[in-house]
Amino acid sequence: MRQPASSARAAASSAPGNVGDVRKANLARVLSVIAGTGDAGRLSRADIAQRSQLTKASVSSLVADLLVAGLAIEIGVHRDGERGRPSVGLVLNPARCVMGMEINVDYIAAGLVDLSGKLLAHEIRPRTNHRSNSGEVLAALGELSRNLQEAAQSQGLAILGGALAVPGLVDEEQFTVLQAPNLGWEGQDLDVAALLPEPKTRFRLFNEANASALAQQQLMEAQDRDFLFVSGEVGIGGGLIIDAELFVGPQGHAGELGHVVIAPDGKACSCGGRGCLETVAGQEAILAAANLGAVADSESRQERIGRLYQALETGAEPAVGAVAEAGKSLGIAVASAMRLYNVSTVVFGGHFAALEQWLRPAMEASLQVHAPSIAAQARLLCSPLGQTGALVGAARSVVGDLLEAPHQLVG
Amino acid sequence: MRQPASSARAAASSAPGNVGDVRKANLARVLSVIAGTGDAGRLSRADIAQRSQLTKASVSSLVADLLVAGLAIEIGVHRDGERGRPSVGLVLNPARCVMGMEINVDYIAAGLVDLSGKLLAHEIRPRTNHRSNSGEVLAALGELSRNLQEAAQSQGLAILGGALAVPGLVDEEQFTVLQAPNLGWEGQDLDVAALLPEPKTRFRLFNEANASALAQQQLMEAQDRDFLFVSGEVGIGGGLIIDAELFVGPQGHAGELGHVVIAPDGKACSCGGRGCLETVAGQEAILAAANLGAVADSESRQERIGRLYQALETGAEPAVGAVAEAGKSLGIAVASAMRLYNVSTVVFGGHFAALEQWLRPAMEASLQVHAPSIAAQARLLCSPLGQTGALVGAARSVVGDLLEAPHQLVG
Repeated sequence: MRQPASSARAAASSAPGNVGDVRKANLARVLSVIAGTGDAGRLSRADIAQRSQLTKASVSSLVADLLVAGLAIEIGVHRDGERGRPSVGLVLNPARCVMGMEINVDYIAAGLVDLSGKLLAHEIRPRTNHRSNSGEVLAALGELSRNLQEAAQSQGLAILGGALAVPGLVDEEQFTVLQAPNLGWEGQDLDVAALLPEPKTRFRLFNEANASALAQQQLMEAQDRDFLFVSGEVGIGGGLIIDAELFVGPQGHAGELGHVVIAPDGKACSCGGRGCLETVAGQEAILAAANLGAVADSESRQERIGRLYQALETGAEPAVGAVAEAGKSLGIAVASAMRLYNVSTVVFGGHFAALEQWLRPAMEASLQVHAPSIAAQARLLCSPLGQTGALVGAARSVVGDLLEAPHQLVG
Repeated sequence: MRQPASSARAAASSAPGNVGDVRKANLARVLSVIAGTGDAGRLSRADIAQRSQLTKASVSSLVADLLVAGLAIEIGVHRDGERGRPSVGLVLNPARCVMGMEINVDYIAAGLVDLSGKLLAHEIRPRTNHRSNSGEVLAALGELSRNLQEAAQSQGLAILGGALAVPGLVDEEQFTVLQAPNLGWEGQDLDVAALLPEPKTRFRLFNEANASALAQQQLMEAQDRDFLFVSGEVGIGGGLIIDAELFVGPQGHAGELGHVVIAPDGKACSCGGRGCLETVAGQEAILAAANLGAVADSESRQERIGRLYQALETGAEPAVGAVAEAGKSLGIAVASAMRLYNVSTVVFGGHFAALEQWLRPAMEASLQVHAPSIAAQARLLCSPLGQTGALVGAARSVVGDLLEAPHQLVG
């Protein structure tokens, strides 16, 4: 399975007692201790030795490597009530970052995320990418990226890697979008060099829902190690977090909630199937059921969505019924997904979060009817993640890769 | 997640460079080299050192521990063309085994499985466990177990551990059956000491479908590291193998395919929900739809199943239609599960395997309609596992635990 490496564990697992592997794992361990303290940090080498259970000599040697790699920096620490010169503390290097990007059906976005996972700067540009030319979309996104590269340079920020999220199935190794029906892309190789021209240590391609799930994870309580993130857009995606890691399945495409069959004799779906959740609860499906379907040379989707909310606010049909029907279908799909994954927390993002007040009653009633034992334990949350969620999640994942495998930068 | 420990990895992951952990991991590594050679094995210490990439001195010391633990034995090796005295080879100890057991709705079973995973002896006893008293069932199973303990003793076999598979959700840590609606058990603590009286190093409680999935895994090709095993009984269970390991989800209950919603307005289910796969494709659901439903003081299920096959053989309705309807529903549920898990291989066991010729056409047609892109890649297999599948899978898992953590026996 292609999953982000899990801290020291992954680095340590490849061979028995191999010294190189132990050093790699310990490098990552020291860095995770430094990263784990956040802003309050500034640990001395002795503090790190204590928390990592490594010897002071080992820590000194490992810290030297991290300073060379530029992932950590030294900083003076003054402690109240202590005399003498300040001890030297260590923090994550604030002048290092990763570029996160997203291609959505209705916009493109890019942003800079630092090693602590914070979004430093970003730019979102509305763009109709439905049935688009991938070269043109990448050229437009490259422009956004260059703006942010310039901003980074002017602030002395070095970009260590990049990540891109797209609404579809991807082959991460090959930088290929396998299927993104709502972009109209199939088997599209992406020239990611156009996005970040210099050779970077790390560039990753993500499914949008998976990237958003990773961003959502940062917002969850520490004990929330398992949840399904449901991304409601024109398409519906799912990103599964199990044991605090992204679960992507054997080929990297797990979580396709939008194509769970919720009506055996239902409508034809863009996937070629029938009765998928997306045919009832996808953005265009809801708009169509609300008599606000797309008409050539007519309003944009954003305008039609505006009219949907106007109708919902006044309680007008068929808008209210269309959203309730979406909620009912969502309850069915979520019931099945919660059974199969054995997760009890589901977080809804995208238009599902915005539609919550009209969607939730029907969804909860449907879950109660179809799976009362699941409903009794279910925690159904709405995500506060906005349009930067996917780019931040994708970038943070690359930050995580760097912090978990710092030996790649140590060289 | 509660998953079987994965070879050296799990043992090595808990701390950085701890000598005790390294030794545990290396013990398991040596044992896995010995186990990996199968009957053709009989490796010398030098062979083991080469294959494990450990020093000869380490291997000698580790092998001494394994001999003390009784997991391996020495055996003389004669090689063709070699002169002098035979070198000493090592094999898994053939006089060690694990007791596997199953409580099924219609029978109880127990068997002895050796360290190579081979079923040495077993006994299956028909028994109506539907709405049963758990104490009585365990007493009956204890009798089977004692028969096999005597058989083991008479053959000089030592039993190192035990495992029990039941058709329901279990809390493995507490030896509790949380929900087994087809046994009529809910929150039932099991006195497993009644099954294997002496304190054993290891006893595990399994969901039946998970245990069967583990048994099925042994029958798959090495490259088949991901598949869903679907167990068709009165209930329908699912056991998911991902990256060659059982995926059980956060609370250990993943894979509940029987309660995937396949008909939103369908029949009420034993789970309290509505429209679950089990209401159409479970054994009693098929019998009822074939006008062979249970009537008090009437035929046993086995007799009614006999009449179902008679009707199917002659192409008689409503039997043929009932099984086709089950196949259609199975196609829908499997389509959704394959999407969510991203697996392309599904193996059908229990009555689904027996019904294959009547079930498969409808199932394949349904999968094609609801998810053609999934259907194009799908491999739908029938399992040759019979009534010993679950007990063998459960026992093998405990054998695996012993081989992966031999330090527990070394003490």
